[in-house]
Amino acid sequence: MAIKTITWVGGIDGYADMVDQTLLPIEYKRIECRSVAEMWDAIERLVVRGAPAIGVAGAYGVLLGLQEIANNAMVDKGLVKIDQACEYLATSRPTAVNLFWALDRMANIARQASHDSKANSVGELKEILLAEAQAIHRQDEAMCREIGKHGQALIAQGDNVLTHCNAGGLATTEYGTALAVMFAAHEQARRFHVYVDETRPLLQGARLTAWELMQAGIDNTLICDNMAGYLMSQGKIDLVITGADRITANGDTANKIGTYALAVLATAHDIPFYIAAPSSTFDLNLATGLEIPIEQRDGSEITHFCGKQTAPEGVRVYNPAFDVTPCRYIKAIITEKAIIKEPCTESIAKIIGTEAK
Amino acid sequence: MAIKTITWVGGIDGYADMVDQTLLPIEYKRIECRSVAEMWDAIERLVVRGAPAIGVAGAYGVLLGLQEIANNAMVDKGLVKIDQACEYLATSRPTAVNLFWALDRMANIARQASHDSKANSVGELKEILLAEAQAIHRQDEAMCREIGKHGQALIAQGDNVLTHCNAGGLATTEYGTALAVMFAAHEQARRFHVYVDETRPLLQGARLTAWELMQAGIDNTLICDNMAGYLMSQGKIDLVITGADRITANGDTANKIGTYALAVLATAHDIPFYIAAPSSTFDLNLATGLEIPIEQRDGSEITHFCGKQTAPEGVRVYNPAFDVTPCRYIKAIITEKAIIKEPCTESIAKIIGTEAK
Repeated sequence: MAIKTITWVGGIDGYADMVDQTLLPIEYKRIECRSVAEMWDAIERLVVRGAPAIGVAGAYGVLLGLQEIANNAMVDKGLVKIDQACEYLATSRPTAVNLFWALDRMANIARQASHDSKANSVGELKEILLAEAQAIHRQDEAMCREIGKHGQALIAQGDNVLTHCNAGGLATTEYGTALAVMFAAHEQARRFHVYVDETRPLLQGARLTAWELMQAGIDNTLICDNMAGYLMSQGKIDLVITGADRITANGDTANKIGTYALAVLATAHDIPFYIAAPSSTFDLNLATGLEIPIEQRDGSEITHFCGKQTAPEGVRVYNPAFDVTPCRYIKAIITEKAIIKEPCTESIAKIIGTEAK
Repeated sequence: MAIKTITWVGGIDGYADMVDQTLLPIEYKRIECRSVAEMWDAIERLVVRGAPAIGVAGAYGVLLGLQEIANNAMVDKGLVKIDQACEYLATSRPTAVNLFWALDRMANIARQASHDSKANSVGELKEILLAEAQAIHRQDEAMCREIGKHGQALIAQGDNVLTHCNAGGLATTEYGTALAVMFAAHEQARRFHVYVDETRPLLQGARLTAWELMQAGIDNTLICDNMAGYLMSQGKIDLVITGADRITANGDTANKIGTYALAVLATAHDIPFYIAAPSSTFDLNLATGLEIPIEQRDGSEITHFCGKQTAPEGVRVYNPAFDVTPCRYIKAIITEKAIIKEPCTESIAKIIGTEAK
């Protein structure tokens, strides 16, 4: 997996170089984000997507925002700009908590540096922001590796794994969450097969997950989302692993629309359903999934395809980007710290914590 | 609903005039089938689709086959041609039983007419085939009306109904099966709302069902197939009604891929799941759904969209056109004869019969 979803090029006046995920798998092209507006647009248009990757992209976005101010400017002016950049970037997508987590980290480190007089100019603030964004970036990579290490034993030789959407290297900065488990099992020379939900409406499964698995040499088959239940009924699925966009204190999990149905179907067929996500995906401020805001996206994602209309003119559309799976359907959550079995408020508190980050 | 899915134009030397359903909803265009090969192609390419409509199309297709023989030819020569046409048309699609049922009816009436000396030339055979195809056609229309009449009371004022694929007027010669129930409820001036599964991979829900409901003035909202479970979890679905492609003696039902998952999800949410289908959709030769052959279609239906590639080159694909829903998930089957509650071998035998047709 040599694909780097996001790379920061240069120093404090550098830019983010990212895979344009809207073009895969037909075209592998990178895009340069040189302003906070470009980063906002890249997140909103799903050029970069996947909760952990959005967190890293957002962190670099804050630095891009601060670049608008000269290095010799006063720190206070920089802090105002940072807050503006954070507020702005937070409006790009509402559901994944990693974005808010990363933006908070960036704002806090800047405020702390000012308070401790570690930054006496905007130039120094930029150095601190760059170091923090790179720390988030490196931590993300490390977390993915740890998720893979913890989760890999769940996949046995000969298993058929089902996954939904893309929780792969492209959804993080490298390696992934749900796919990290598969990559790690593959590195153990275990042979297994993955069914990939195409994941309507934007086909992240078909475009990204199948592509990543093929790149890694992991045997896989693409299906439409509505085929997963039928495969389960035929005994062709041994376990389900997906990523997550936000997990509340009790283990309720927001993830790509369709995840809930898979979890209910898996439970009805006595198939274990796993979530793989780093601790930054937990939002301990929320008690249950009822509190998670669900992004509603434009209906044209469903009515049009590559610009071609596929539904009647004027049809009403419902297009939630995510759904919420109650913790009772989740057999375990695979984190970088440990596997949380039978996730609930108590088991999560023990491994992730209870305090708001 | 003035749309006639299939019309026979002219007498024994006439042709079938059909809506080209591959072009809807962007273009309403009719296609003329003037040979058995053209009819085979139209069925295979889904120009005409939906189990009851395929039955009627197949019946006319037999007459188109016989048109290759001169009117003054011997009856025996005609019977051979009819058998050839039936065998050929039977290879167009394997799952819907209505096709085989209609082909058998056509072959039997011809054999009987020869045996009874009612047909003494191929010309007379053609007259008999035309009358039989038109009888099947009229019966289909009448059956749809009766299904609507029996089923309409299941939809209450203010209900949210979910449907999958297209079991509307376009799937029959007029009026439909699952949609017949909705049209009949609508004619009673009952107000309700329909969620329409887009139905991957070929989007019959988005292209045909949403279009038919809009034409009829029935309030509806288009969703991706993977959203139905989430709607159920929010209490937004009161009942599910789909059509069927084949129902076995015990009530197991083959229908468009994705139906099984909906039935399991509906059951998990305590939502009634109904099938609407005429008695010609029952295959009493088969004891259970395990015996139903499931059509596997080309993977390009999933990997390409309007000629545009949306999945990696060379990806493996699984593309069953149908799945089988065990009778235990079906609350009732709405037929033209009566509503079969708690469908099972006994209740079906009472209303539909037990003998092979």
